Amino acid sequence: MEKIRIGIAGYGNLGRGVQYAASQNKDMEVVAVFTRREPSSVQTVLPVRVERMEEMEKYAGRIDVMILCGGSATDLPKQSAQIASLFNIVDSFDTHAKVPEHFAALDAAAKKAGTLGAMSVGWDPGLFSLARAYFGAALPEGKTYTFWGKGVSQGHSDAIRRIAGVKDARQYTVPVEDALRRVRSGEEPELSVREKHTRECFVVAEEGADKARIEHEIKTMPDYFADYDTTVHFISEEELLGEHAGIPHGGFVFRSGRSASGNRFLMEFSLKLDSNPEFTSSVLVAYARAVHRLSKEGKTGAVTVFDIAPKYLLPEDAAAQRKELL
Amino acid sequence: MEKIRIGIAGYGNLGRGVQYAASQNKDMEVVAVFTRREPSSVQTVLPVRVERMEEMEKYAGRIDVMILCGGSATDLPKQSAQIASLFNIVDSFDTHAKVPEHFAALDAAAKKAGTLGAMSVGWDPGLFSLARAYFGAALPEGKTYTFWGKGVSQGHSDAIRRIAGVKDARQYTVPVEDALRRVRSGEEPELSVREKHTRECFVVAEEGADKARIEHEIKTMPDYFADYDTTVHFISEEELLGEHAGIPHGGFVFRSGRSASGNRFLMEFSLKLDSNPEFTSSVLVAYARAVHRLSKEGKTGAVTVFDIAPKYLLPEDAAAQRKELL
Repeated sequence: MEKIRIGIAGYGNLGRGVQYAASQNKDMEVVAVFTRREPSSVQTVLPVRVERMEEMEKYAGRIDVMILCGGSATDLPKQSAQIASLFNIVDSFDTHAKVPEHFAALDAAAKKAGTLGAMSVGWDPGLFSLARAYFGAALPEGKTYTFWGKGVSQGHSDAIRRIAGVKDARQYTVPVEDALRRVRSGEEPELSVREKHTRECFVVAEEGADKARIEHEIKTMPDYFADYDTTVHFISEEELLGEHAGIPHGGFVFRSGRSASGNRFLMEFSLKLDSNPEFTSSVLVAYARAVHRLSKEGKTGAVTVFDIAPKYLLPEDAAAQRKELL
Repeated sequence: MEKIRIGIAGYGNLGRGVQYAASQNKDMEVVAVFTRREPSSVQTVLPVRVERMEEMEKYAGRIDVMILCGGSATDLPKQSAQIASLFNIVDSFDTHAKVPEHFAALDAAAKKAGTLGAMSVGWDPGLFSLARAYFGAALPEGKTYTFWGKGVSQGHSDAIRRIAGVKDARQYTVPVEDALRRVRSGEEPELSVREKHTRECFVVAEEGADKARIEHEIKTMPDYFADYDTTVHFISEEELLGEHAGIPHGGFVFRSGRSASGNRFLMEFSLKLDSNPEFTSSVLVAYARAVHRLSKEGKTGAVTVFDIAPKYLLPEDAAAQRKELL
C-alpha cells in the first residue's frame, strides 16, 4: 500500500499527538517534523527526522499533507496560508471570530498554489461543529446547546498565571449538572453563561503572596471569570504537578426539538477525553487522509469539516464502509 | 426563494411524518402524495394533492425529489430503482444484509436515468451509521457499540401478533443499564446479545387463550426472543391502546478507544425519540435537500450518508454555516 506522507509543523503537545495518532493509521507515515527550535534539541515520542521550519520547502513533492500544530493566536494566522502555498494542509484554527478572514486567506493561497487546506479541524471546532450541523438539519425546530468540560482550559490557566504572586495554576471548566438535566428533560431552557458552566481554579501562590488579593483578582477578571461562579483552591506545587498534570477535556452538544405534530426529540453527542491535544491530533490525522484524497480528485482551496463527506475519512473503500458501518 | 418540490411515495406513518417535516423547512413544498389506496379515502395530516401511484409519471419535471415511504421488506426493493428512473429519490432501506444489492440496483437505474438516489437514510441506518464512521475515523484503535431503545420494535411486535391466541401486542427493546455503564467506564467489554438488550412484551390475549402457552411461545421464538431475557405482561386492550399507543425509540452509539500513548477516550451519541417514524422522516427530508443540490451539481447514481458532505443538508449557505455552526 502506498502510504500517505505526513509532515508535522510545530512540535508541542499537538505535534506529539499527531505523531502518535499517525502511528495508529497503517496507511500513513510521518516523513518529518518541522520546528522553530534547534532540531537536535527536540526529543520526539517516536523516531522521526526533525528539521528546521525553514527547510520545509525542500520537502515539496515528498509530503502529501502538512499538519499544522501551532497555536491559533499567532502561529496559524501566518502559517496556514503560507504553508498552503507549498503543501496540502490541515489546521486546528479555533479563534471563532476570525474564521471568515482565516478562510479567505487560506482559500486564496491554496487556490493559487493548487493545494487543499482543511481548517478548524479537531473536536470544537470540528466534531462538535458537525454535531451542531447534523442535529440542526435533522431538527429544524429546536434549540442547540454546547457544554464544555469537565476539562482544563489552557487560556484560563494562563490568565491566572499572569496575576502577580501566582507561580502556577490549572483551571477546570465544569458544566453545571442541573443545566445538563434541564436540557435532557426537553424543557429547552434559556441558560445564562453563569447557569451553564462553573470555573474551578487550582493555584500555587508564591511564598508570602496575598492569597485573598489573588482570589479576588481571579474572581473579578472580566470575560474570563467575572460572569461565572468561580472556586479558587490554593495548593502546593507538588499537588499541582501530581494531581493536575493531565490535560483532560470533553463536553456535550445537545439538540432538543419537536416535530410539527408536537412529538419531542433529544439528540446528544458527548466526549470524555483523557488528553485534549491527543484527541484533537487524532481527528487532524483522519482529516489529513480526506485532504489527501480530495486533493487527488483535483479539489483546491479552503474547506472545513462541513465540506468533507465522511467517506473520505476512513481507510476502507465505500463498499466496505456500507457493509461494516451503514 | 425557489422551493424544493417534494413528492411522497407511500402514506403510512413515515409518509405522514415526511409531510409534517417538510412543513418545518421553509425551502420545501410537498407537491403530491402518491398512494396505492383509493386517493379519496386518504386523510392527510396537512392539505395536499393525493394521487394514485400510477399517476407518478405525469409529475416528471414537477417534482425535484421523491421521498420513498414504503417498507424495506417488499416495497423498497422494487420501488427505489423503479422510481429513480423518473425522479431523484431518498429511501430508508434498512435490510442490512441486502444493502449491496439494493445499492447496485439503485445505482444502475439512477445512472441510466441521470438521477440521484440516497438510500438507507434515517437514524439507523443513517445518523447512527455516521456516528460509527466519524467515531471510527477519529479513534482507529477502539471498540464501537450500538444499543437500541428503549423503544418499540415493529418487527418483534408483529412476531408476537402471529402467535395463536394473541389479539394485539407491543414489544419494547431495552438496553441493559449495566452494559451501558460498563461501556462508559472504558473497559471495552465483550458483550453477548443477551447482555446488551432485554425484551419487554405487552400482550393482549384473546378470551380463553392459554397465557402460559403464549408466554412460552414468545420466550422460545428463535432469532426474535430466544437469545434475550424476555418479560411478558398480559394486559387489557384498553391498557395497550392507552399506555402503549406511541412509537418511541432511541439508542446509543459509543466508541471507546485510546491513543498510542495510552490515553483513553469515550465518544457517545444518543437519541431519545417520542416518535420513531417522525424522526426518521425529518432526516429523510434533510437528505432530500442534499439530493436536490447534488443532483443540480450533476451527481448521479446511488449514494449513502457516507457520500454526502454535511454542508448539503442545511438551508444556510457555506459562509453562514461557518459563522453560526463551526
